[in-house]
Amino acid sequence: MTTPVVDLRSDTLTRPTPGMVEAIATAQVGDDVYGEDPEINALEAEVAELLGHEAGLFCPTGSMTNMLGVRALVPPGQEVICDSMAHIVRAELGGHAVFGQVTTRTWQSDRGLVDADAVLAMAVPDAGAYFVSTAAVAVEDTHNFGGGTVQSVPELRRLRAGAAALGLGVHLDGARLWNAHVATGVPLSEYGSLADTISVCLSKGLGAPVGSVLVSTADRIAEARVWRKRMGGGMRQAGILAAAGRYALRHHVTRLGDDHARAHAIAVALAGVDPSIVDPDLVRTNIVASVWPSASAAQAFIAGCAEAGIRVGSVGSRVVRLVTHLDIDEAGAARAAEVLPAVAKQALAV
Amino acid sequence: MTTPVVDLRSDTLTRPTPGMVEAIATAQVGDDVYGEDPEINALEAEVAELLGHEAGLFCPTGSMTNMLGVRALVPPGQEVICDSMAHIVRAELGGHAVFGQVTTRTWQSDRGLVDADAVLAMAVPDAGAYFVSTAAVAVEDTHNFGGGTVQSVPELRRLRAGAAALGLGVHLDGARLWNAHVATGVPLSEYGSLADTISVCLSKGLGAPVGSVLVSTADRIAEARVWRKRMGGGMRQAGILAAAGRYALRHHVTRLGDDHARAHAIAVALAGVDPSIVDPDLVRTNIVASVWPSASAAQAFIAGCAEAGIRVGSVGSRVVRLVTHLDIDEAGAARAAEVLPAVAKQALAV
Amino acid sequence: MTTPVVDLRSDTLTRPTPGMVEAIATAQVGDDVYGEDPEINALEAEVAELLGHEAGLFCPTGSMTNMLGVRALVPPGQEVICDSMAHIVRAELGGHAVFGQVTTRTWQSDRGLVDADAVLAMAVPDAGAYFVSTAAVAVEDTHNFGGGTVQSVPELRRLRAGAAALGLGVHLDGARLWNAHVATGVPLSEYGSLADTISVCLSKGLGAPVGSVLVSTADRIAEARVWRKRMGGGMRQAGILAAAGRYALRHHVTRLGDDHARAHAIAVALAGVDPSIVDPDLVRTNIVASVWPSASAAQAFIAGCAEAGIRVGSVGSRVVRLVTHLDIDEAGAARAAEVLPAVAKQALAV
Amino acid sequence: MTTPVVDLRSDTLTRPTPGMVEAIATAQVGDDVYGEDPEINALEAEVAELLGHEAGLFCPTGSMTNMLGVRALVPPGQEVICDSMAHIVRAELGGHAVFGQVTTRTWQSDRGLVDADAVLAMAVPDAGAYFVSTAAVAVEDTHNFGGGTVQSVPELRRLRAGAAALGLGVHLDGARLWNAHVATGVPLSEYGSLADTISVCLSKGLGAPVGSVLVSTADRIAEARVWRKRMGGGMRQAGILAAAGRYALRHHVTRLGDDHARAHAIAVALAGVDPSIVDPDLVRTNIVASVWPSASAAQAFIAGCAEAGIRVGSVGSRVVRLVTHLDIDEAGAARAAEVLPAVAKQALAV
Repeated sequence: MTTPVVDLRSDTLTRPTPGMVEAIATAQVGDDVYGEDPEINALEAEVAELLGHEAGLFCPTGSMTNMLGVRALVPPGQEVICDSMAHIVRAELGGHAVFGQVTTRTWQSDRGLVDADAVLAMAVPDAGAYFVSTAAVAVEDTHNFGGGTVQSVPELRRLRAGAAALGLGVHLDGARLWNAHVATGVPLSEYGSLADTISVCLSKGLGAPVGSVLVSTADRIAEARVWRKRMGGGMRQAGILAAAGRYALRHHVTRLGDDHARAHAIAVALAGVDPSIVDPDLVRTNIVASVWPSASAAQAFIAGCAEAGIRVGSVGSRVVRLVTHLDIDEAGAARAAEVLPAVAKQALAV
Repeated sequence: MTTPVVDLRSDTLTRPTPGMVEAIATAQVGDDVYGEDPEINALEAEVAELLGHEAGLFCPTGSMTNMLGVRALVPPGQEVICDSMAHIVRAELGGHAVFGQVTTRTWQSDRGLVDADAVLAMAVPDAGAYFVSTAAVAVEDTHNFGGGTVQSVPELRRLRAGAAALGLGVHLDGARLWNAHVATGVPLSEYGSLADTISVCLSKGLGAPVGSVLVSTADRIAEARVWRKRMGGGMRQAGILAAAGRYALRHHVTRLGDDHARAHAIAVALAGVDPSIVDPDLVRTNIVASVWPSASAAQAFIAGCAEAGIRVGSVGSRVVRLVTHLDIDEAGAARAAEVLPAVAKQALAV
Repeated sequence: MTTPVVDLRSDTLTRPTPGMVEAIATAQVGDDVYGEDPEINALEAEVAELLGHEAGLFCPTGSMTNMLGVRALVPPGQEVICDSMAHIVRAELGGHAVFGQVTTRTWQSDRGLVDADAVLAMAVPDAGAYFVSTAAVAVEDTHNFGGGTVQSVPELRRLRAGAAALGLGVHLDGARLWNAHVATGVPLSEYGSLADTISVCLSKGLGAPVGSVLVSTADRIAEARVWRKRMGGGMRQAGILAAAGRYALRHHVTRLGDDHARAHAIAVALAGVDPSIVDPDLVRTNIVASVWPSASAAQAFIAGCAEAGIRVGSVGSRVVRLVTHLDIDEAGAARAAEVLPAVAKQALAV
Repeated sequence: MTTPVVDLRSDTLTRPTPGMVEAIATAQVGDDVYGEDPEINALEAEVAELLGHEAGLFCPTGSMTNMLGVRALVPPGQEVICDSMAHIVRAELGGHAVFGQVTTRTWQSDRGLVDADAVLAMAVPDAGAYFVSTAAVAVEDTHNFGGGTVQSVPELRRLRAGAAALGLGVHLDGARLWNAHVATGVPLSEYGSLADTISVCLSKGLGAPVGSVLVSTADRIAEARVWRKRMGGGMRQAGILAAAGRYALRHHVTRLGDDHARAHAIAVALAGVDPSIVDPDLVRTNIVASVWPSASAAQAFIAGCAEAGIRVGSVGSRVVRLVTHLDIDEAGAARAAEVLPAVAKQALAV
């Protein structure tokens, strides 16, 4: 009998649980392009309410909700500013420029964490006919390529206030906002108050197969609904996806704490080999970003993991990412924590 | 007890059948962004094989497969030509311009039917540095706003040959190509030979909840896969949607003949009132485009239908569309055919 | 001594006259990006006043003024409708899609002439979230590829009224509006009342080296000024171009009647060979669009002209265009009219 | 008699000299859209030769040559990286996103100066289907908002080599490359070897009224010529502008040393008041970027200058820019250096 692989590449890999499959199979659906899918309508209303916004919009991906959210705040030819590791500027294939004609300047950050004063100093609102006008700031919480880092809520609050004073919008890429919420204990409605448009994903830590939701004002969501169709995102009986998402919202939010504890244990195990690989104190959610002294050491670590039945993923040449999620149980995480130190030692010896 | 409504607004309204739900519930899924969803991979291969193309790409909507297909053939700033009622130019919200920077000229047609010579005469390939270069021709089969009309296969063959001779690509919007195939008996593989890129939908006559497939060469599909993510269409465990689509391909293609017969019966019933409303000889698939003498007559017909428990949809001010589909059984179609003449008479009397 | 070539390819070929050169050399200029070029400011004000609009904007080309004018009326993803021979859809290289994310449907016309009822029937204003919304209609007067044809002013008036009633904008591509004005005697201010945005060129019949002006409301022009810079059209001491344009406005408008008479004489000469080549009654301005029975006859005519020292240009495979302008004097035009019949006879004999 | 104003706002403000006007007035021109303007053809060839590139393209503005140059290197949806103060990302109104669908990440720099290793570490070439691929690096020399700073040529050489090794293009925004050339003594042909596409301006230090030239390979320039027309930049008898540019190339390059000396003298004068305002050692070309302790001090300085007959411009809230140029003679510069210290003292006392 072969030991099952422990797949830590991403929390997007989760497969629907039996309860979720049951929810999908019994979903009452309709044609969402006509606004007649009850599951979709319920999901959009529920997520909007959780975050204290007026309305929600279901989309096939978080890239689409991010593009729609930024576009809602930034007119063609104006800019959104974000950190240089942000998902919107690193992993959405330029869609914001392609679709929204939005330009970008980026700041360098410490693991994606926002410094409100520095960000606001970079903005140039209403810059006139010669300079690019900044129209919005985008932040990401938790920050994926920063290593699942959790933003300081007071800092986000200062950012929002400062942005509002300058007439700038704030877009929150909350693909893993659920993880931030569980890590900090800050209510979702309070997170909702920190941005004008918020994108949350159902398909990452929450374990739903497909889908993200954008929340904002009713007006912005009505316009985003038209743009969703323009982007090719207006699905029909999407309720089978929404049903899975609603199930995940009811059953898979609080359990994210387990993922966080397991990621922390993995970080402790790796730091035991060499504290320069990762600082466990910084691993507060489900992502362990391990840094290696060289690209070859990183490659050796990935290869060693694979041999040991652990799959991990690279993010940049010297950074290897390990992500816990719904399909990694206690035993899988324990096995990873047990096996990884030896693999790490070998990789460092390369 | 109330009589159930007969909803003839669109074939996009169909709900998953029990067999399809079973297929969804038992689907083996993975993360399609990583190329690891077995249902998706199987669906893409199956549709490509049916149409005799090298590769396929699953997308959330037919608008997205159309945008990706046209974009694959038309560089930025060049043009696709199509008829002025084509879905790509009427019902995709300008996405081709927005996304692909593609410009369009349109021809006027008789119910969407292609005249190869006229179309080719309109094209201006390799127009140099001053005139817009035509890069592709787009055709639609069956033609939605033309009234579900079926293109002449010899005419399509002449169009493809003529286009190839001029160095032009051909995109086939085959959202309802299954209906054309059933109506004409022409094999799908032969349809596949008529275009460079083909979009087919699983969510219309076939009755799957969500999804379309683009087929073309392996190279074009590889690039379209990147652009799909750029458009926000790169879903995760999309296999639950693909499983429904695969079920539909196995069980719902040949039964389209029933939809066609039922639409024809409805057309006969309406033509019995006044032959100017619709010519039953032209109703060869599942769409009845009924034309009314005035916008007010059309409105009266829609209202009268609603009162009689029949839902229908307007397409333009004087055209009312009735569409048969998987959720309209023999009894429902019979009831429609029985009730509609009286409603039509009243509408004409307005 | 060689006879000078008579260059009838285009009215864009004109070289500055001595008086115009003097105007250029004595121009008082400044930095127009700062709004400080007196010649530019004067030109923009003068053209706006001529056409009875609030404000004007100088641009390097008519393509740019057309793109800015259409963009001012059509939001991203919405459509402008125009005839299928319009310069904006044939000869601006898709810039409206590329820049403005504007989509297009086209109608077929008789030599570019507008039929207001047919055009308005094609428009679909405020089409909602499913269909493309028509935002504007574009017309061209005189119509270049239609053969310098002159629009009926009553028809334009009906179009404007009908468009306004539907909430649609009207853009007038008036690259050669000066020719229409001279041909019809209708005051420029009356032409100005026929559209929301109007583009006029200084570099065609008027003989200035470079430049076009867009006129509209002050608000639209202020926004277009920003977009002009976004397109790379914000020049510095452009006053040397404006000075030429102002000179042309003072000296070269009424003389367009000479060009018209000379083009008519050429048309008469060609029609004398075969009336199917051109109908002189239709040649009311400075463009003679001659139609040949075959592409080879057209090529033979072009080659024969070249041999005879007359340069002409093709527009489509069977259409050869001859254009009179400031650099074609009475003698040149007379020589063309004298020489062309023999050339035409030989071409028809091919 | 009033003392004439000394206008140090920008080197774009220069008016044509008598010799230049003469060159304009005697220019032999033609229709450049037909490729028949001898002045344009000569200018394009001359600038290409100076920089050792195959071909050149004249455009109305440096924004357009920058957009065309970046677009030539970066496909839609891919990225160019540049520093956060670069003209292309600060002062071109998002045109790169709007027109080229190009996305951007920026690095923070010391006064715009390039650190080749840091830049190359930021690039992610051929990033696959998930991450944004870096396609090009853009540098600016001299760096406008960096204060006219001059790039290290060895550093640029390392950047080019490293970029080439990664398969990345390099675009050089050389709006003021002439100033760098004069400041360093490095031949223009050597500068030409440092990038794949280079934009140079004729309308800044060189004093021509309008125009910029893009140089690159013949293939890229041929495609850029089409795109120039697509952007509305295909002018007609642009030779009158090119003649001014050619005159400037012959007469106004070496004299830039005077501008540099005058700017340095102004910097010394200001530093004499407070060395934190500007470091004269950094003022090697014609731009003095003076930094003030507060926005109100900067405003007071601008106002004080105006009162003293000196016009200066703000770039950011605390930075005031003073630029020497062709229209600032020795007397004007001397007056500025004499008057500014007192104005600066008053401003600092605010």
